[in-house]
Amino acid sequence: MKIRIGIIGASGYTGLELARLVALHPKFELTCITAKKYAGVKISELYPSLLGFCDLVLEEYDESVVSEKCDAVLLGLPSGESMKVALKLYENGIPIVDLSADLRFEDANNYEYWYGLKHLCPEISRVAVYGLPELYRNEINDAKVVANPGCYPTAALIALYPALKASLCGSTIIIDAKSGISGAGRQLTLETHFPQAADTISPYKVSGHRHLGEIESEIKKIVKVDNPQIVFVPHLVPMNRGILCTIYVPLRNEINIDEIREIYEGEYKNELFVRLLDKGIYPSTKSVQGSNFAHVSFELSHDRKTLVLMSAIDNLVKGAAGQAIQNLNIMLGIYEGEGLLWPGVFP
Amino acid sequence: MKIRIGIIGASGYTGLELARLVALHPKFELTCITAKKYAGVKISELYPSLLGFCDLVLEEYDESVVSEKCDAVLLGLPSGESMKVALKLYENGIPIVDLSADLRFEDANNYEYWYGLKHLCPEISRVAVYGLPELYRNEINDAKVVANPGCYPTAALIALYPALKASLCGSTIIIDAKSGISGAGRQLTLETHFPQAADTISPYKVSGHRHLGEIESEIKKIVKVDNPQIVFVPHLVPMNRGILCTIYVPLRNEINIDEIREIYEGEYKNELFVRLLDKGIYPSTKSVQGSNFAHVSFELSHDRKTLVLMSAIDNLVKGAAGQAIQNLNIMLGIYEGEGLLWPGVFP
Amino acid sequence: MKIRIGIIGASGYTGLELARLVALHPKFELTCITAKKYAGVKISELYPSLLGFCDLVLEEYDESVVSEKCDAVLLGLPSGESMKVALKLYENGIPIVDLSADLRFEDANNYEYWYGLKHLCPEISRVAVYGLPELYRNEINDAKVVANPGCYPTAALIALYPALKASLCGSTIIIDAKSGISGAGRQLTLETHFPQAADTISPYKVSGHRHLGEIESEIKKIVKVDNPQIVFVPHLVPMNRGILCTIYVPLRNEINIDEIREIYEGEYKNELFVRLLDKGIYPSTKSVQGSNFAHVSFELSHDRKTLVLMSAIDNLVKGAAGQAIQNLNIMLGIYEGEGLLWPGVFP
Amino acid sequence: MKIRIGIIGASGYTGLELARLVALHPKFELTCITAKKYAGVKISELYPSLLGFCDLVLEEYDESVVSEKCDAVLLGLPSGESMKVALKLYENGIPIVDLSADLRFEDANNYEYWYGLKHLCPEISRVAVYGLPELYRNEINDAKVVANPGCYPTAALIALYPALKASLCGSTIIIDAKSGISGAGRQLTLETHFPQAADTISPYKVSGHRHLGEIESEIKKIVKVDNPQIVFVPHLVPMNRGILCTIYVPLRNEINIDEIREIYEGEYKNELFVRLLDKGIYPSTKSVQGSNFAHVSFELSHDRKTLVLMSAIDNLVKGAAGQAIQNLNIMLGIYEGEGLLWPGVFP
Repeated sequence: MKIRIGIIGASGYTGLELARLVALHPKFELTCITAKKYAGVKISELYPSLLGFCDLVLEEYDESVVSEKCDAVLLGLPSGESMKVALKLYENGIPIVDLSADLRFEDANNYEYWYGLKHLCPEISRVAVYGLPELYRNEINDAKVVANPGCYPTAALIALYPALKASLCGSTIIIDAKSGISGAGRQLTLETHFPQAADTISPYKVSGHRHLGEIESEIKKIVKVDNPQIVFVPHLVPMNRGILCTIYVPLRNEINIDEIREIYEGEYKNELFVRLLDKGIYPSTKSVQGSNFAHVSFELSHDRKTLVLMSAIDNLVKGAAGQAIQNLNIMLGIYEGEGLLWPGVFP
Repeated sequence: MKIRIGIIGASGYTGLELARLVALHPKFELTCITAKKYAGVKISELYPSLLGFCDLVLEEYDESVVSEKCDAVLLGLPSGESMKVALKLYENGIPIVDLSADLRFEDANNYEYWYGLKHLCPEISRVAVYGLPELYRNEINDAKVVANPGCYPTAALIALYPALKASLCGSTIIIDAKSGISGAGRQLTLETHFPQAADTISPYKVSGHRHLGEIESEIKKIVKVDNPQIVFVPHLVPMNRGILCTIYVPLRNEINIDEIREIYEGEYKNELFVRLLDKGIYPSTKSVQGSNFAHVSFELSHDRKTLVLMSAIDNLVKGAAGQAIQNLNIMLGIYEGEGLLWPGVFP
Repeated sequence: MKIRIGIIGASGYTGLELARLVALHPKFELTCITAKKYAGVKISELYPSLLGFCDLVLEEYDESVVSEKCDAVLLGLPSGESMKVALKLYENGIPIVDLSADLRFEDANNYEYWYGLKHLCPEISRVAVYGLPELYRNEINDAKVVANPGCYPTAALIALYPALKASLCGSTIIIDAKSGISGAGRQLTLETHFPQAADTISPYKVSGHRHLGEIESEIKKIVKVDNPQIVFVPHLVPMNRGILCTIYVPLRNEINIDEIREIYEGEYKNELFVRLLDKGIYPSTKSVQGSNFAHVSFELSHDRKTLVLMSAIDNLVKGAAGQAIQNLNIMLGIYEGEGLLWPGVFP
Repeated sequence: MKIRIGIIGASGYTGLELARLVALHPKFELTCITAKKYAGVKISELYPSLLGFCDLVLEEYDESVVSEKCDAVLLGLPSGESMKVALKLYENGIPIVDLSADLRFEDANNYEYWYGLKHLCPEISRVAVYGLPELYRNEINDAKVVANPGCYPTAALIALYPALKASLCGSTIIIDAKSGISGAGRQLTLETHFPQAADTISPYKVSGHRHLGEIESEIKKIVKVDNPQIVFVPHLVPMNRGILCTIYVPLRNEINIDEIREIYEGEYKNELFVRLLDKGIYPSTKSVQGSNFAHVSFELSHDRKTLVLMSAIDNLVKGAAGQAIQNLNIMLGIYEGEGLLWPGVFP
């Protein structure tokens, strides 16, 4: 018998992607999808790509219905909304993967600083595991609630982790991130209006994007310092999907490229969803389109004093829905790659 | 034991897509891939999206090797090259799906007219079945060699077939077709150079694209007329994948939209890969991206005298590699949807 | 002394383009720009491309201020809003070019049918001249109020006019039109949200776009028939600017391509803003990007029974703001090309 | 009488842009355009956007013809080719602006290191002035030969110059640059093939793009250090035109944003082609599309220890052809903005 899955907040692009992946999962069965604004509408009417794969009708959220119909839930709600439903579901003992930022900070004060909202369930934040399987697989395995990482933090941390762990990094780390427009969601804004966003590139939230807080929190856990110096600048790129991070790490000591490769291979050679690219090949977001893979490569700067890390993910898959399914697989004791081993759709 | 598949001409986008789909197919195993220009290179080096799914090395074509290693072959060669290898493989009794145009015309003279090449194996052309399963499923089932349709003809004929069969059409049929740039292949040309092709649209081969010949041949078989009057104008659209056909059919007699829906549902309601869209919803190529589906809708013009048919496919999947796998499934007696039932990747 | 120009409704893309062109015009001076929603904001804050060229502050519309400050006005308001201000300005004797649809139909009933709005000043509609200079130059010269044509009608009528005038056309004319997304304006909609509109193409308003009414009205004037049979289907193309019309005209009698060229050259060889492309060269919207030119070409279908007309314009220039300036030049007795003779920005 | 201009190497995108700008220049007259590959072809056949503005026929290069026909020349040849013609033209006393890299390095050894070519006229390199008017206006005014800067160095140096001059910069400067695809030229390559380049982003030449050498050379002149530490990583972005530089400058001392603005305004407030954007507004390449402007803004990182500089230019205008005309204006004693004061074409 299949495991019954609910998607709370299913009308956005992350919800669509969750529905697509649950539909393809051999051990999951989608039993409930909710969306306030579109209650009563078939999801395949919003997204004809789902026709025949998921023709469920979106419902208003009702805790008792969800608790009865679902063995596990994926929260696709916006930040600020997830925490309104998480506590009750948690108390009902239902395994939760929350894709919002609400449960990503162990310390709710930190959340309140970056998101400007009063936290409604700091006790859940405290126990929620940060769902980056490459770093926290064991903890996820034991977790009842997982906070699925943000798209930028996922791309940045997967690239940085081995270098940080191996203590290669000197002072300030620069993360220059580039995102496709779907990362901004389905909400209409001037920035994501086609004539404003197409055929152009621009930076945004230069002095303090919320994901900087999340990245800093996680880096602190890895390197055990008080104030990691991180600069993070995101950019909007005229493409649908994908995040590319170019990360500049000042090297503490001289090191050659083969030693770096050894460190990265040591960390990642058995990882299902991280691919180290061959020497001289750099990530292109299109190569991971529609897939749960992170492509990673590294290079020394011309003066050999800076390590340049590059990573590409699909923001809606490894950066959101795919990673959520990966986490759920681990939580439920299923093979981690179940329902997720699709190659990218290129070109 | 899995069926061993060879892809002859595997370095182009169609070859890549064939490799991706064979890798995902539960009953197929890829045993041989060839490409003259890239012999010795791993296909996943050309296309990092395949890393871990298909890391085979491309070989030079060698008939005896292919015949030994493969239970069935997919020919991804350019038109003019396929017919050089098809005859021998056919004589060796190996099931073939040819994705080039070489075997699409029953009458080789017709091929020679449209392609300007001497045909090398008219006897194979004569027995090859035109691989549009929605029209010729039974014949494909019995075939040893299948000519996989062109991308434009696939999109056009799926939209037209029910209307033609129901004798709705009066005089000249106009097919205005719009294609993503991957339809032009991986060969470098000025027309497909990014700065020429991006952020613009233009028609090409207005007075006689080769696919017009193929569409006319097939329409003749459906409606049994000598000279079907067809105008076909293709356009290059700044997108990667996808074909949209907008087809204008002068109505022989007045008919209302519900009767038309009845005709289309009668024809297609059991088809695995054709989806009729609900009233007022029109196809968008992105909804079928990466998938083997054809989305079809229809509408009456404002004066109700012209039937407007619209269809969208992914040119590399239903318009090429996906349809080839569908044909191979049918030829080999496997469930037609095996390895092909993935929803489109939207957005 | 320069002619003082006002732009009423200046915050949208058409308003921006009007401001850009007025700023470049040697005989015009922009003295007043209005926009309800952005009153008090500098237009160069909305559009940094205007920095240093136009730094005027947007004002609320005030009839007496406009009448005092301006020698002529350009109405960039949405359809339904223009007619609210046109009457008073007309009575004040101020030359007007209205870019909305409000004054395009001589017969206000026709407007009411297509726009679903009660017309507020049918008497102005009756005297307003349809501002397609290639057809109505003399009338524009004498006009006090000009209705600037829609973008689709401009592209379609310029391509069709010589063929219609020369009585080449048989029955139903098919206009398959493709537009860049800026044609839908600056208003946020799901259809123009980047992730929905990028990397895809789709038709819209298949059974009756408003511009069909306008095209039909104009064709009637040219060919003097009651019910010209026109099918018009617009499509959204993932590009910023540009309209391409592909028009299928059934030929009344056989004709060869050189005779057609003669007809087109006869009509257009002295036209400043229409360029007939050489044989075998087809329009690409990017070649007219940012310019007031219409590129036109024609070809016979393979069976020589259908004339295929192709035209490309920049929807915001020849399809809107540029044509408005061209009309204003004519109305004010200035050289028609003044301030408009810029080549397209390619690539 | 107009100044007679020749464009040597006129068939590429830079050549096209030079032709467009010369055609619009009130004091220039284009008398000679050359291109080996397209000799005998009208440039407006290659680029229909030029129809009626420049219909000259491309010729083979002939030194005596050029010397006779032209009062000044613009060299649009590829690096390695310019130096073959520069010496003779220089000796003939013809003012030259060279858009290749051949004359950009005072020390030819430096050129040979970065370009891997033997320099053919180091004596010209020594006297050529680096054509960044914002830095070297006086020297350009006296020059006979000007080396037009690369597109990346232009964008980077304009952003960096005031900060460098004011000694704000600590150690390593990171330049993360993003370019539209036209920057790679009209030459066909796999990287610029639409299906490879569209809807994706990727870094290239991470460990040593040639423009790094040029940027380092120039920074040395500004800050008078031996080895400025610069990391430069370029990226290909799916857009036609535009370069965005995001530059990370570690601050030597604490400074607030208003002091930085003062420094930048002090340097640039009278510059014709540099625009400082208002607080909180960041550059978007589309705002400078088709124009000669550089848009610059700056921001402090969240921890206030890093200065983030951002600049956007059109790579073909301020990054190539426009700047060449600006240099030529200065060299010839014409008003610097002559023929160049067009706003960007947005959207």
